[in-house]
Amino acid sequence: EIVNRINAFSSPLLAGKKVVITAGPTQEPIDPVRYISNHSSGKMGYAIAAAALAAGAEVTLISGPVALPSPAGARMINVTTAIEMADAALEHSCHADIFIATAAVADFRPDTVHPHKLKKTSTSAVMDLHLVQNPDIVAQVAALGSKRPARVVGFAAESRDAEKYGAEKRIRKQLDMIVINDISVAGLGFGSNHNKVTILTGESRTEIGPSLKTDIARQLISFMAEHWQLNSSDLKENNEVSTS
Amino acid sequence: EIVNRINAFSSPLLAGKKVVITAGPTQEPIDPVRYISNHSSGKMGYAIAAAALAAGAEVTLISGPVALPSPAGARMINVTTAIEMADAALEHSCHADIFIATAAVADFRPDTVHPHKLKKTSTSAVMDLHLVQNPDIVAQVAALGSKRPARVVGFAAESRDAEKYGAEKRIRKQLDMIVINDISVAGLGFGSNHNKVTILTGESRTEIGPSLKTDIARQLISFMAEHWQLNSSDLKENNEVSTS
Repeated sequence: EIVNRINAFSSPLLAGKKVVITAGPTQEPIDPVRYISNHSSGKMGYAIAAAALAAGAEVTLISGPVALPSPAGARMINVTTAIEMADAALEHSCHADIFIATAAVADFRPDTVHPHKLKKTSTSAVMDLHLVQNPDIVAQVAALGSKRPARVVGFAAESRDAEKYGAEKRIRKQLDMIVINDISVAGLGFGSNHNKVTILTGESRTEIGPSLKTDIARQLISFMAEHWQLNSSDLKENNEVSTS
Repeated sequence: EIVNRINAFSSPLLAGKKVVITAGPTQEPIDPVRYISNHSSGKMGYAIAAAALAAGAEVTLISGPVALPSPAGARMINVTTAIEMADAALEHSCHADIFIATAAVADFRPDTVHPHKLKKTSTSAVMDLHLVQNPDIVAQVAALGSKRPARVVGFAAESRDAEKYGAEKRIRKQLDMIVINDISVAGLGFGSNHNKVTILTGESRTEIGPSLKTDIARQLISFMAEHWQLNSSDLKENNEVSTS
């Protein structure tokens, strides 16, 4: 009993698990100079990658353009656009144990990318930009069928009715879990080192924070491991070894 | 004669001069999450600010969102949108000795900023974004009349016919000098630490680089001081002091 407890405590929560994480914004070019993007420092996704690595997981981090150092030990895939991120996510998430979509993917991109810088002319004080929808990456990964990761986790950043939209999004996109943050709360979320999230699964509602993003990341990883009992098989193996 | 030469060498090129510099991109919000921006690391503008400070100038740096440390000794004005940058530039450049516009200002902004995150609906696979023109900051500063800075310097980033467009831009915007970089050259310009520029005044054409942006910044500041003989009065005063 004592041996079990010690092993349960010291066993890395995600030992041997394959975790794929998307992070940061995407940039959708208008021309060589201009682009559309989303606010995202990448801090939450990078913190989750670091927490998953610390929990013993094998981590692939698919990242849009951010100003952050790569977490030591992560396999980095650097991308710019949503289409590049979708390609990388579909390729690397096959048969993963957990796919975690923290990236703030641009929903729309310009339908035409101009090869040269658009000139501002004195006659055109207005400009219409025609946008088309980008792939919904987390929904595509959740619909992978036989290659689908065992668990798919989405993030929702909402400025109103955060929990309502988040709950709908979880069901519509066939996610196992959604992590909601209300971006209307000042001082939390985008660019900040702090955050507060609400986690919805089919069966539970859990709040974490307000706290440092690094703390929230560790608690999220613990919550996933415990909620899905991901380390039960590893724990059993560890016990067998240590009591032999 | 020897005293003159020593003083000419040791006198800070821009001692006591008031230099105002804009740097970095601007971000033009679509809603609380999305924005339009321009590629710009801010490195060139920050390097010019550092070079101007080293040359003895009093520097005000009006900066869009970048991931760079503030140059020690600069007065920092942090802004997000082109309108905020224009307001700061017009306020701080009055009676300046040199105004240097390195910022990659977004030419257009969405005509409406949505207070809440726009929802992606399954029925709308396309979206039209209506943009209106932003103020032309360097042209507005150059047209300040009696409050106009003594010298106004623009930057032009062009992907083709760089020198032709740059020369036209200098005249149209009433600039004393334009610094042109050809962004079609791989490995130079945006995000890079290296650059190559062509400087046009009414009378001269000068190339600097390819070189480190920090080197180009120092050479640009030296060129401005020498071309406009900005330190001649200071030099005279220094000589009087040291030979008295």
